[in-house]
Amino acid sequence: MSILVVGSVALDTVETPNGKVVDSLGGSATYFSVAASFFPSTIRFVGAVGDDFPKEHIDFLKSRGVDLDGLDQIRGGKTFRWGGSYIDDLNSAQTHFTELNVFGHFTPKLPDSYRDTPYVFLANINPELQLEVLKQVRRSKLVVCDTMNLWIDISKPALMETLRQVDILIINDGEAKQLTQESNLIKAGRQILTYGPSRVVIKKGEHGALSLTESDFFALPAYPLASVFDPTGAGDSFAGGFMGHLASTDQPESEEAIRQAIGYGTVVASFNVEDFSLNRQRNLTTFEIEERYEQLRKMVDF
Amino acid sequence: MSILVVGSVALDTVETPNGKVVDSLGGSATYFSVAASFFPSTIRFVGAVGDDFPKEHIDFLKSRGVDLDGLDQIRGGKTFRWGGSYIDDLNSAQTHFTELNVFGHFTPKLPDSYRDTPYVFLANINPELQLEVLKQVRRSKLVVCDTMNLWIDISKPALMETLRQVDILIINDGEAKQLTQESNLIKAGRQILTYGPSRVVIKKGEHGALSLTESDFFALPAYPLASVFDPTGAGDSFAGGFMGHLASTDQPESEEAIRQAIGYGTVVASFNVEDFSLNRQRNLTTFEIEERYEQLRKMVDF
Repeated sequence: MSILVVGSVALDTVETPNGKVVDSLGGSATYFSVAASFFPSTIRFVGAVGDDFPKEHIDFLKSRGVDLDGLDQIRGGKTFRWGGSYIDDLNSAQTHFTELNVFGHFTPKLPDSYRDTPYVFLANINPELQLEVLKQVRRSKLVVCDTMNLWIDISKPALMETLRQVDILIINDGEAKQLTQESNLIKAGRQILTYGPSRVVIKKGEHGALSLTESDFFALPAYPLASVFDPTGAGDSFAGGFMGHLASTDQPESEEAIRQAIGYGTVVASFNVEDFSLNRQRNLTTFEIEERYEQLRKMVDF
Repeated sequence: MSILVVGSVALDTVETPNGKVVDSLGGSATYFSVAASFFPSTIRFVGAVGDDFPKEHIDFLKSRGVDLDGLDQIRGGKTFRWGGSYIDDLNSAQTHFTELNVFGHFTPKLPDSYRDTPYVFLANINPELQLEVLKQVRRSKLVVCDTMNLWIDISKPALMETLRQVDILIINDGEAKQLTQESNLIKAGRQILTYGPSRVVIKKGEHGALSLTESDFFALPAYPLASVFDPTGAGDSFAGGFMGHLASTDQPESEEAIRQAIGYGTVVASFNVEDFSLNRQRNLTTFEIEERYEQLRKMVDF
């Protein structure tokens, strides 16, 4: 099954206690796509870069089988850049700079061939743009979205409209509390279900993830890592592994398939944080993913 | 199988966003014993109270089948009192006062009939006293201990000596990091294994618990609660449910039994926080425990 992703493509400058990278490949759509590419689905990519975007990154995405017909390379434009660090706390980034560049004028326009994609992921972009995407999508089977604190702060009405139209919201714990003004995460999750999504998946970083529907509750611990090299992109990698597996089963309503998908999301995210940027994914194999997935299953079995 | 517990008995004054109780039944040995009493084991209790300790509390412990031959009621003494609140953060108590009273001079002396108890739990008391208990214990099958930040601060050499002599340390996440000076919890757990225990169980409050040995790793999320009424005693209730089940299986080396025991500890702790003091346990049934245990199993199954 095909998956459509609309989101950011970035060149990230990131500093962690383990070192620093400058202008490395990043962005929500990028992390998502590469994660999803380890599962048997076609990824249709919508995003924008400038003409400074290195060809090697295009080649890498193509080598992962990502369909880049929807990637707009804007002449004379500069690629979105983000700079941040995780020095004191590996769980939350300190932003040093944000240069929106071409991403500041980004208006997603789906190639006609993309409009019937059954699985849709609205990565973390302005909810106004997420709504633009939803207008262009036809006959989707499952729409999943992400968001962030910034949009909860400055664009809540559009975000609430997006939520009315999506099936699943994937969100981190702090943002779930912020969105609902609830300090208890279970209450926050239940509140979100009243906004529109039939399921909310709450990411808790090193503490794993929760999934809530009206009738089901699932909790999965994170894969235990003795060191986190660079957490950038963990959330998008989780979403990519989740959607990648779910689309490959083509059973978006199945609680069992969803739980497995959360397991795969957890595993792919755990590999992502083992190196800067998408470096770990460059030599990652599906065998390693399956192996760690089995370990994860055994770790929670009782 | 019998379980020996040595720890505090207290009259707690606790304030939470849900209200306040004054001089309510508390203490690490108390919470532990009542939790363990829901499993088919005899609990042998060593602690001290003053003659102000209400008879109704004695009667309650007896009604739970707890053997109080080791409870020293000191004439003219006052029972240990603790006062605290959880106003801003239900995960950490603010201590308002500590009146050690008879607990300040407590020296555990085991009745001779207690000395051969196969399962021993050293609740959170001064590690010097934990060592005193270990000197008096004969032929134990499993020794488990707890500790707290205070002893890591002021009595670390004795604590390290205790750790050399116990099989399992149950500790919360913040204390595990403090004890090892490791910010990563997995590294902290592995470090603790080098101190003596063959297993460490790390409690993470609303995020569940981890268990590490040289060869096994187990992670269990907490039972999801939309509201926590009063978290006092959750850790000791966890330990009580854990030891209660483990002693009833009499397979302290079995990874399977340990995992189930962590599940039961999680369940009993989740009931404990539903009301002040031990109030929820007064009408709790083993049927409710089994029901929630099954729910917990289903919540993590994938």
